[in-house]
Amino acid sequence: MIVTVVGVGLIGGSLAISLKEKGVANRIIGVDHNEENLRKAKELKIIDEGSSLEDAMTRSELIILAIPVDAVLKTLPSILDKVENGRVIMDVGSTKQKILQLVAGHPKRGRFVAAHPMAGTEYSGPEAAIQNLFSQKTMVLCDVKNSDEDALEMVEGIVDQLNMRTVYMNAEEHDLHTAYVSHISHITSFALALTVLKKEKEQGRIFELASGGFESTVRLAKSSPDTWVPIFRDNRNNVLDVLDEHIHQLQQMRKLLEDEDYETFYKLIQKSNKIRKILK
Amino acid sequence: MIVTVVGVGLIGGSLAISLKEKGVANRIIGVDHNEENLRKAKELKIIDEGSSLEDAMTRSELIILAIPVDAVLKTLPSILDKVENGRVIMDVGSTKQKILQLVAGHPKRGRFVAAHPMAGTEYSGPEAAIQNLFSQKTMVLCDVKNSDEDALEMVEGIVDQLNMRTVYMNAEEHDLHTAYVSHISHITSFALALTVLKKEKEQGRIFELASGGFESTVRLAKSSPDTWVPIFRDNRNNVLDVLDEHIHQLQQMRKLLEDEDYETFYKLIQKSNKIRKILK
Repeated sequence: MIVTVVGVGLIGGSLAISLKEKGVANRIIGVDHNEENLRKAKELKIIDEGSSLEDAMTRSELIILAIPVDAVLKTLPSILDKVENGRVIMDVGSTKQKILQLVAGHPKRGRFVAAHPMAGTEYSGPEAAIQNLFSQKTMVLCDVKNSDEDALEMVEGIVDQLNMRTVYMNAEEHDLHTAYVSHISHITSFALALTVLKKEKEQGRIFELASGGFESTVRLAKSSPDTWVPIFRDNRNNVLDVLDEHIHQLQQMRKLLEDEDYETFYKLIQKSNKIRKILK
Repeated sequence: MIVTVVGVGLIGGSLAISLKEKGVANRIIGVDHNEENLRKAKELKIIDEGSSLEDAMTRSELIILAIPVDAVLKTLPSILDKVENGRVIMDVGSTKQKILQLVAGHPKRGRFVAAHPMAGTEYSGPEAAIQNLFSQKTMVLCDVKNSDEDALEMVEGIVDQLNMRTVYMNAEEHDLHTAYVSHISHITSFALALTVLKKEKEQGRIFELASGGFESTVRLAKSSPDTWVPIFRDNRNNVLDVLDEHIHQLQQMRKLLEDEDYETFYKLIQKSNKIRKILK
């Protein structure tokens, strides 16, 4: 089938590569408001051609929105207005409640499948697109009862082909759990980078001393604000809630260190070690 | 030469493997108060034999202390009391000021070289020992002017053979910079694990949704309290200082989110992105 990918960056580009590789798509049309990205994506053979959204929509069975969540909010209603019968729209955004509220009453709501692949890297743009980004990862599908059966089946089939496991949630659950497991990690990492950049006046020292541990904790701080500010904005209440808990935990550790209560500090670290069991 | 490794865990065990592989050591004697670790290390062929410290010291040219920093503080003075001429003691601990203050006036201070390899993983024990842990990493050598010339030369030669780059610092600088670049990452990660374990009642959700990003940020929370509590205790003032800055940065991000000042939030993330340049 012909697939259109709107936004040929890390996620859209990686999806394009996988869909072609798995034989799901025989042709990929790229749409991007950034002409340079479109040119690069073509050069890298991630897409077969660049086109306008209007033209691409008339020729594709599946249109994937791989753009920042604020851009999905802005464009999805008008895309649904124009979608022809039998065609499917799917997004891959990191927040779901606002988007699904926005199109809840749309007469063509059924053509839309809300998806979120739990996969990514800290890089962005078409050059960041890689093979096998999604293999063995989780795809969250949200509020599937509001999608048409054939649309859902198409997306489920693709998720299967991508070698991903599927998890079903409603939009509210999705935004809550992703705040806990994904969004707070990014906040932490951004704040850690700011901390080290502020305290460590001698940047050469950071380079010299940075071990794998530091690099892994601060890695997400390389992520693009174009992607992440809209996510934090959309999921503001949940992010504030988990951020409060995180600040509280840090303050608790600070207090124990200040009071030199190393016994309780030890127990707290043991408690945090429980993450071993969950993450294997 | 014959090398004794005291503490056959992640660091000591990995050193033993590399020293043997590079031909620096033709025999490795392991010393560990944990008999089970000693047995495993021998089984895994990380060491050639287990022995008591007293016996091992009389037979080795180099004794490496790869034990938690509180154990170094406890044992180093008596080890120096017993060290024979020509032999060298080296530690690989993550804090340096207290240890070097403690032995500053020792008549055999010159036989000791204070070292800290900026390398590790979140795992511990002899099973965690791996090949090539140190290659291309930094070895910090501290207050080298107080080590005897031949002792320093031996250690520098080994660092070279391990394919590491050497950085020289005084103990005060070392503890300051490692607090900024290494110790705070661990605090952050422990606190993040506690946050997620507290908020996410449905642990299955963590497993399902955890992507590479979350795993990388929380990875250090698997680290052992036996290693880390003594480090935080030794380096308490520096850790408190950088922890205050980290809490401040998180509070600043929280405030911007609460005030919905997304423009400043965007700029802050851009600023944190500068870590890209430093970590390549």
